[in-house]
Amino acid sequence: MKKLFLLAAFALTAMLTQAQQALWGGSQIVSPEVHDNNTVTFRLKAPKAVKVQVTGDFLPTQKIKTPFGEFDGPGYADLVEKEGVWEWTTPEPLKPELYSYTFLVDGLRINDPSNVYMIRDVQSVTNVFIIGGERADLYKVNDVPHGNVAKVWYNSPTAGMKRRMTVYTPAGYEESGKRYPVFYLLHGMGGDENAWSELGRAAQILDNLIAQGKAKPMILVMTNGNISQEAAPGETSNGFVAPSMQLPKTMEGSFETAFPDVVKYIDSHYRTIRSKKARAIAGLSMGGFHSLHISKQYPDMFDYVGLFSAAILPDQKMDSPIYQNFDAKLATQFAKKPALYYIAIGNTDFLYKANCDYRKMLDEKGYKYEYFETGEGHIWKNWRIYLTEFAPKLF
Amino acid sequence: MKKLFLLAAFALTAMLTQAQQALWGGSQIVSPEVHDNNTVTFRLKAPKAVKVQVTGDFLPTQKIKTPFGEFDGPGYADLVEKEGVWEWTTPEPLKPELYSYTFLVDGLRINDPSNVYMIRDVQSVTNVFIIGGERADLYKVNDVPHGNVAKVWYNSPTAGMKRRMTVYTPAGYEESGKRYPVFYLLHGMGGDENAWSELGRAAQILDNLIAQGKAKPMILVMTNGNISQEAAPGETSNGFVAPSMQLPKTMEGSFETAFPDVVKYIDSHYRTIRSKKARAIAGLSMGGFHSLHISKQYPDMFDYVGLFSAAILPDQKMDSPIYQNFDAKLATQFAKKPALYYIAIGNTDFLYKANCDYRKMLDEKGYKYEYFETGEGHIWKNWRIYLTEFAPKLF
Repeated sequence: MKKLFLLAAFALTAMLTQAQQALWGGSQIVSPEVHDNNTVTFRLKAPKAVKVQVTGDFLPTQKIKTPFGEFDGPGYADLVEKEGVWEWTTPEPLKPELYSYTFLVDGLRINDPSNVYMIRDVQSVTNVFIIGGERADLYKVNDVPHGNVAKVWYNSPTAGMKRRMTVYTPAGYEESGKRYPVFYLLHGMGGDENAWSELGRAAQILDNLIAQGKAKPMILVMTNGNISQEAAPGETSNGFVAPSMQLPKTMEGSFETAFPDVVKYIDSHYRTIRSKKARAIAGLSMGGFHSLHISKQYPDMFDYVGLFSAAILPDQKMDSPIYQNFDAKLATQFAKKPALYYIAIGNTDFLYKANCDYRKMLDEKGYKYEYFETGEGHIWKNWRIYLTEFAPKLF
Repeated sequence: MKKLFLLAAFALTAMLTQAQQALWGGSQIVSPEVHDNNTVTFRLKAPKAVKVQVTGDFLPTQKIKTPFGEFDGPGYADLVEKEGVWEWTTPEPLKPELYSYTFLVDGLRINDPSNVYMIRDVQSVTNVFIIGGERADLYKVNDVPHGNVAKVWYNSPTAGMKRRMTVYTPAGYEESGKRYPVFYLLHGMGGDENAWSELGRAAQILDNLIAQGKAKPMILVMTNGNISQEAAPGETSNGFVAPSMQLPKTMEGSFETAFPDVVKYIDSHYRTIRSKKARAIAGLSMGGFHSLHISKQYPDMFDYVGLFSAAILPDQKMDSPIYQNFDAKLATQFAKKPALYYIAIGNTDFLYKANCDYRKMLDEKGYKYEYFETGEGHIWKNWRIYLTEFAPKLF
């Protein structure tokens, strides 16, 4: 009997492994392989392919023409085939960063079947890997205490629905009995309540900054800024719909109007410090637009404001009272001397000029702000950087 | 100025959409398309491909030979090309179910670039879709109150590490002030704390059963049964490693020994009913093995036990005290008359005979249990079914 059951245990493991591979094509190819010197090899088993390329944000960019002008798109590198396995190694070590890539096989864009790590950005899913070191170590899961990340449904009476958000509570929250400051972090157009925790590595960044003593322990609240939805695509009764960049009611005042519902929920369900000095709001692109308007509409709510590559549309004329009396509301906000008003943008961002104009206006009025400029444009690489710069300044 | 900013707003939307597509190949192809009659059309734009197939669990199975015998693998269907777009429609309507599929393009297995909904099963990522109706409506997000799902780090002094688990709290938990029963739900070999919430649709199933009044509101705790890991692949300081079916310390007593740490954490951090009558444990495959041994090792802990396609290895001889005195411990467990001892398995499962033998032994000893048999084998379709059958019987 002993022998029989040992055989059974072995067979269980072996059969399941084999079944797995037979059924779903598990791969023995290692890709991407990050070498000790931070060069990276990409591999794809595709014996019948004629041409295989890799495209990703670690390659030199190429100009792409659009009706709105030229902008930078990613480059491509050709893989070389040997016995059915295509391969390419970066000629130089890659700098520390979280990188995205896909393969192009005879023009067909595919994910790397050897890499289960993928992130969705609106309608597209790309593989990811991290080259550690420097700032990119903040994007990794390190051997430090971890906060919890929850998908939370809250009631928004103003929006007339229950809505979903992502809430990070820092390591130690459960045991400490303490009250914590709260940082509200908003996504851009096409994003949702999953964007900052997945594309933005926000939980890892906070875990690491807090463990290093560089940021204060805080609650991080990542809302869904598309007020026409209850939740991210796939998480509502609409089913597995295709995600869309162009949703209704994204920048017409509804989200800003309903925002106090979020703060009310968080303050009544978490151990928060319920005061302006312990609240921050920041967002990227559309979320920067939302942060700008929410913070000026409710001037006693947030002491820290961050505009990351913000969609600055100061003369936007909409029906919503949110956008009315812009100058007077901004004057009120700055008369109350916010602890931090932070603007960050990349110098090739298509919103760069709009942000320059906005800063010029702030300068003319003598409104104090901090400014942080990076290279490159409207990309997650920059938004992760801005989060690592902004969070340590809070509270 | 008004015109300028309206143009800017339009340009922002249009450029981002275009950039998105240019950069990452967003697709206008609709796939899969579920028609009103529940036939489904799959499409792939691949002008240079020679042969395109779809493989998935909705296709008639094919026999696959292994050293351990024949078993059922999925079938394939050939797509037909027209103007660069390959297409295939199921000849018959599909029955209500959550289905998985991938494409094979000239032998290369790829995910459907038009479908962002994917689930990882060990090393493989497949696309998914749901045909609604009947039991499969329980797998959908419906317009009902939703529970919250959290990734929680708990301290396991016995394992000597902090470990990650998934905790579902039912809708209303935050406001009710009530105490709740707890259902501990364990994964199989190759799985982790994400398996039941993703592959198993456990949160959707509980939301729906509770909303229909078929299951009691309960807390659902989904642990990580691989005691050598802190957390799922990618969620530890090991980085983005390839997931593995063959991990050390999976069925040698360590997980069972450390399990009381989980119960202790849950009972001290959630509003639970802290008694045997309000605790259930169930698991699939290896998780069924764990549930069997944990429930008999701690006979005053769980009143409800579920073995789903359990890896029954009753004569396993290991050093761990967990497996010693099997007969005596089982006698003690059944002398205490568990409220439910539930065994479910598919009649083509490779563990079917081991489960028959185990039931025969229970019968001989007069130990009462419920038995539920389905068709097919060791697959997630069955485990979702068993969860929908088991949860309504609890508490």
